[in-house]
Amino acid sequence: MRAVVSPLQRGYKSAPVFFRGKLVESQDTPERLEAFIAVVRDMGLDLIEPPVIADALLKSVHDPGYLEFVAEAPGRWPDMMPGLTSLMPNIYPTRHFRARLPLHYLGQAGYYLGDMVSPLTAQTWAAALGSASSAAHAASLVLAGEPVAYALCRPSGHHAHADMGQGFCFLNNAAIAATVARTRHARVAVIDIDVHHGNGTQHIFYDREDVFFASLHSDPDMTYPFFVGHADEIGTGRGEGFNLNLPLKVGSGDAAYLAALDIAIERIRRFDAGFLVVSLGLDAHESDLLGSLDVTSQGFVEIARRLAALRLPTVLVQEGGYTVSEVGLVLRSVLSVFAKTVKQG
Amino acid sequence: MRAVVSPLQRGYKSAPVFFRGKLVESQDTPERLEAFIAVVRDMGLDLIEPPVIADALLKSVHDPGYLEFVAEAPGRWPDMMPGLTSLMPNIYPTRHFRARLPLHYLGQAGYYLGDMVSPLTAQTWAAALGSASSAAHAASLVLAGEPVAYALCRPSGHHAHADMGQGFCFLNNAAIAATVARTRHARVAVIDIDVHHGNGTQHIFYDREDVFFASLHSDPDMTYPFFVGHADEIGTGRGEGFNLNLPLKVGSGDAAYLAALDIAIERIRRFDAGFLVVSLGLDAHESDLLGSLDVTSQGFVEIARRLAALRLPTVLVQEGGYTVSEVGLVLRSVLSVFAKTVKQG
Repeated sequence: MRAVVSPLQRGYKSAPVFFRGKLVESQDTPERLEAFIAVVRDMGLDLIEPPVIADALLKSVHDPGYLEFVAEAPGRWPDMMPGLTSLMPNIYPTRHFRARLPLHYLGQAGYYLGDMVSPLTAQTWAAALGSASSAAHAASLVLAGEPVAYALCRPSGHHAHADMGQGFCFLNNAAIAATVARTRHARVAVIDIDVHHGNGTQHIFYDREDVFFASLHSDPDMTYPFFVGHADEIGTGRGEGFNLNLPLKVGSGDAAYLAALDIAIERIRRFDAGFLVVSLGLDAHESDLLGSLDVTSQGFVEIARRLAALRLPTVLVQEGGYTVSEVGLVLRSVLSVFAKTVKQG
Repeated sequence: MRAVVSPLQRGYKSAPVFFRGKLVESQDTPERLEAFIAVVRDMGLDLIEPPVIADALLKSVHDPGYLEFVAEAPGRWPDMMPGLTSLMPNIYPTRHFRARLPLHYLGQAGYYLGDMVSPLTAQTWAAALGSASSAAHAASLVLAGEPVAYALCRPSGHHAHADMGQGFCFLNNAAIAATVARTRHARVAVIDIDVHHGNGTQHIFYDREDVFFASLHSDPDMTYPFFVGHADEIGTGRGEGFNLNLPLKVGSGDAAYLAALDIAIERIRRFDAGFLVVSLGLDAHESDLLGSLDVTSQGFVEIARRLAALRLPTVLVQEGGYTVSEVGLVLRSVLSVFAKTVKQG
């Protein structure tokens, strides 16, 4: 199994985020990526650098106005607001407002950014571009014949919408991988096992029948992003029936998690997917500082076994997982299962 | 002319707000109210205390779930989050989300609060209730025969929706005054001259033909609240044609402002209003730290003259105005015009 990481991703540090009433360091630390890299090196996997993602591919997933905003706003706003080193809005087009793009940069920030933990800085674009490049290249490797590849994506991608960044995410790495896979496969499945609902990915494919999306996540009634991820979100138009949300009660643990996973896997089989993208969040682990599902290390091994047993060409796209001391151990166990399955395959 | 302020309003201090990238002291300071009181006293106006607003009146304007949240959440969340002294969300039901109330208090905060400058604390409810009481009582005085009354409302109200607090506002004082007026008058007009769009008031009356709402404000493309306040928002259903937005370019000055005011006044005449509520923001003044319309002190005198010339029973409901050193002078000139007009009337 090969692993992909872009040098553009290295050293990226988020600006402070608003969390529980204070501006604090982001939980999405640079050390997370270093922990993923350490695991890959320690396992002796090939670690390769991707080419920079093609502009056409980016624009097939993301809105051009949004891409321009993420790439260029940080270079424009210091003239308007001296001393401001990161851009976070203080008002959003929430309930009772119109979803109309204003001219002022703070209004545009409220339009293009979906929360208070995803500040935009001059570093953001390069890191997001690197992460998206890793996902795209990992998918290409699998299309070229490798059974499985791992994209060390940080920043994560699954909360990023076509035209909105959110939840530490700016470009939707999993959606990009699925889009690459769609060039060869008629039906692509994305399964999101991050503890938080993969709402960006859901939204990108919500009206499509060629990409099946399934997400297992902590109950949005109690868990970020709160306003999406319910079981009755099943897709729309031609996409109706091709979106599956399996919200789990806080503290569910292994048994409930694996039972839900079996439902998702059965749906992926019935969908007759030719390619699998796994949004590999590790924050459902019981150690995670942002998690709430209490899945054990053994639970993660079992999750990996069941996904690997689909025997589909697979890209593993890194998403969340925030307790740096533990996240490497969980990742290692998951990658080991896929590596072993491939060997036997 | 009598003026109304509740002791519940005194000393209310907002928790810090998120403004231009930092948590800072709110621009809505306790000193603002003291400046209003000083003007009223200095002019020799009667300053009276209102009875606490009736629950039925509050519920005829506001959603019961929202009222309960503002009143009770501050007493409940410390158990869930020790050390948190004010409640501000870090995610909202913005674009691509569902407007569905979650169970978690942070999710509920994102549902019920519309921005990052309106933190909820244990002080908020009493102050908002006092402010709403002042507005309701001022309207009652006018219904009882006084030609004009001034409600010293702080916190302000015009950004508060039936079920959402926003922009330093929690209860919509102007909407409450208009609702009181409606018990005697078939047609009530609300004119909002705050520099920011009166979006809460607009929303409360958007589908009604018995309350005409007009707002003069700085162009939402460049000005908070950014996502509402455009000229094409004309009301809906039976309310179509009974909402008038007159957005003004940043830096408009007196001439443009007064020309727009004449349009609003003409519409109020045609509506045949029997009662006028003025959402009296003073932040269109050239001195204002949150303003952008550059209206002069003489401009405010002229605004007051033209509104007073309608010779309608009128309640003046205080809204914004943030440069404490100047706001009293502007208020004094406005109140003097109304007091003089009443004397001559």
